[in-house]
Amino acid sequence: MTNIEILGFVSAFLTTISFLPQTIQVIKTRDTSSLSLAMYSIFTVGVAFWLVYGIIIGDKAVIIANLITFVLSSVILSMKVYNDVKIKREKNVIN
Amino acid sequence: MTNIEILGFVSAFLTTISFLPQTIQVIKTRDTSSLSLAMYSIFTVGVAFWLVYGIIIGDKAVIIANLITFVLSSVILSMKVYNDVKIKREKNVIN
Repeated sequence: MTNIEILGFVSAFLTTISFLPQTIQVIKTRDTSSLSLAMYSIFTVGVAFWLVYGIIIGDKAVIIANLITFVLSSVILSMKVYNDVKIKREKNVIN
Repeated sequence: MTNIEILGFVSAFLTTISFLPQTIQVIKTRDTSSLSLAMYSIFTVGVAFWLVYGIIIGDKAVIIANLITFVLSSVILSMKVYNDVKIKREKNVIN
């Protein structure tokens, strides 16, 4: 492995693993109020596209990194959608 | 441009641009309560590493995508740190 390959590997590891603390925080606190629905919608679709791209070009690093990110991002997005739907329903009950 | 190149371009565009609505939301609402400090710390460092990686291998797409993401992620991280420091100070005043 060259130094450049190691740098690429570390970069991919950091940007992938960074979504783990956010996922844990969302699961623990159930709070998604300041998370952007648009961000997680676009991001999750984008990561899914990266995953398909990785599968087509047969790059294991791209596949693994984006598979992990896709799972983490999907959990965050699901919790965000669940909370937003819940808040909307509660508002409708009040009105 | 081949179909695979277009897929890669669209993927990079989506995962990059996804941080724009989160940045706008954070600037507008000033609310970062449910954002993970660990996520944005690790993610911003990771994107900076990607940027250096892009510069070294001379890949314009990697450079541009990560430069934009770095700016957006830095704004979110700065606001998160600012709010957390503010909350800590207010708590100290109360205690």
